[in-house]
Amino acid sequence: MSEPTARGSDHVQSLARGLAVIRAFNASRPELTLSEVARETNLTRAAARRFLHTLVDLGYVRTDGRLFALTPRILELGYAYLSSLSLPEVAQPHLERLVAEVQESASVALLDDVDVVYVARVATSRIMRVTINIGTRFPAHATSMGRVLLAGLAPGDLDAYLERVELRPFTQHTVTSEPTLRGELDRVRNQGWAYVDQELEEGLRSIAAPIRNSGGRVVAAVNMSSHASRTSLESARRDLLPQLLAAAARIEADLIAMSTAEAGPALSR
Amino acid sequence: MSEPTARGSDHVQSLARGLAVIRAFNASRPELTLSEVARETNLTRAAARRFLHTLVDLGYVRTDGRLFALTPRILELGYAYLSSLSLPEVAQPHLERLVAEVQESASVALLDDVDVVYVARVATSRIMRVTINIGTRFPAHATSMGRVLLAGLAPGDLDAYLERVELRPFTQHTVTSEPTLRGELDRVRNQGWAYVDQELEEGLRSIAAPIRNSGGRVVAAVNMSSHASRTSLESARRDLLPQLLAAAARIEADLIAMSTAEAGPALSR
Repeated sequence: MSEPTARGSDHVQSLARGLAVIRAFNASRPELTLSEVARETNLTRAAARRFLHTLVDLGYVRTDGRLFALTPRILELGYAYLSSLSLPEVAQPHLERLVAEVQESASVALLDDVDVVYVARVATSRIMRVTINIGTRFPAHATSMGRVLLAGLAPGDLDAYLERVELRPFTQHTVTSEPTLRGELDRVRNQGWAYVDQELEEGLRSIAAPIRNSGGRVVAAVNMSSHASRTSLESARRDLLPQLLAAAARIEADLIAMSTAEAGPALSR
Repeated sequence: MSEPTARGSDHVQSLARGLAVIRAFNASRPELTLSEVARETNLTRAAARRFLHTLVDLGYVRTDGRLFALTPRILELGYAYLSSLSLPEVAQPHLERLVAEVQESASVALLDDVDVVYVARVATSRIMRVTINIGTRFPAHATSMGRVLLAGLAPGDLDAYLERVELRPFTQHTVTSEPTLRGELDRVRNQGWAYVDQELEEGLRSIAAPIRNSGGRVVAAVNMSSHASRTSLESARRDLLPQLLAAAARIEADLIAMSTAEAGPALSR
């Protein structure tokens, strides 16, 4: 349903361009001049100025006259979504327990188009820490949570995904062939978990399990990730998998215990 | 600098209205019909339809034809800001250690206009859990982190805050008089921490400490909150404060260790 459609006369170009101005800011470009915003967004300087000043009026951007930067108020746009989900709040204490038990970082993600999107996370030590925030996106095909979420799609939805996705390689290990990925997803569906070994980044391994709603449909995934030097498939299976599956079961039980009336849109759709 | 200015000819109304459509969705209204969006935003149905369809085109909203809801992609707008801050990532492991030590929830917030905005949080048990996410805003005057942040303002900035803020009561304990608040802030500035007893919500107490940059300016606050039945001022001071101040010092040391070149906009301004 979230698949972009052809842009007709209903498309409000000013809104699209204003959102592109917001996205021009990121970790490597936290402060931008007017010229830099214009260049990043392919807008004229005059247009970029109007959008920036509108965002300053609304409190989403601040400026010292030369440099522009986002303000914390911008979080309210994503907060509207996060607060509409029961999942992050339900999952958080279970992730904390899981991290305390096995001392590896744990996360929960949803599928959005061809990506997984993190909606909850508890990280462990700062050494070899993977930089992931709420809202971080990774391509589903190269991640353990993505494999679990893709394996849970209805056959027609999986076909649609495979038609529109580009199975890009990120390391020499990334699965980039459709038949291989389909075989991998069959295996994940049968065994009830996914293990991905350095397909997104060299040195990064992760293991994921599905979170199902009361109807048995996969609505989210929970994973643990760690550096390859610490975790082989055998050790992940022995030391992490039992606790991971237990955490997934506890999250599922809590989600089902909350009435479906309380479940957010990403769970009830 | 983020204070709204008069809205001149530079103001792009379509962008402002589109962002209002995004904000129409929240926890109590995760799914809305076209009519509901029009009502919430004071737009005509025709205008609301154009904004919603643009957001669907861009992947920020999904629809089944009747109901509309935000998608996880909306998080990318806040993510641009979060990823531009070093603070949440630096603070997270220290919050985790703090929570493990004292078994109460811990958070980090920034001041934005008259509110505190949460940018990092580690929560503890689910019983009596306060529902707070990244991006949650509370009025600064009624919160411990707000008191610490206000106490750290330059005198002119504090005067400007007091001119524009409405010191609303949330409980019978909320400080609503300017002289009392000024006296409270003097005390916080001198003692180096703030304790707030049920001023935001009955039953909720919290204690906060400032996080300073290398120049000694207060750039953020860290707090621990708990139910009033578990924490008196005396027990907070004895059992929580030493660890809280130690966590603040560790976060400061890490922030200063990262070169100022790496510090995000909210820290360098």
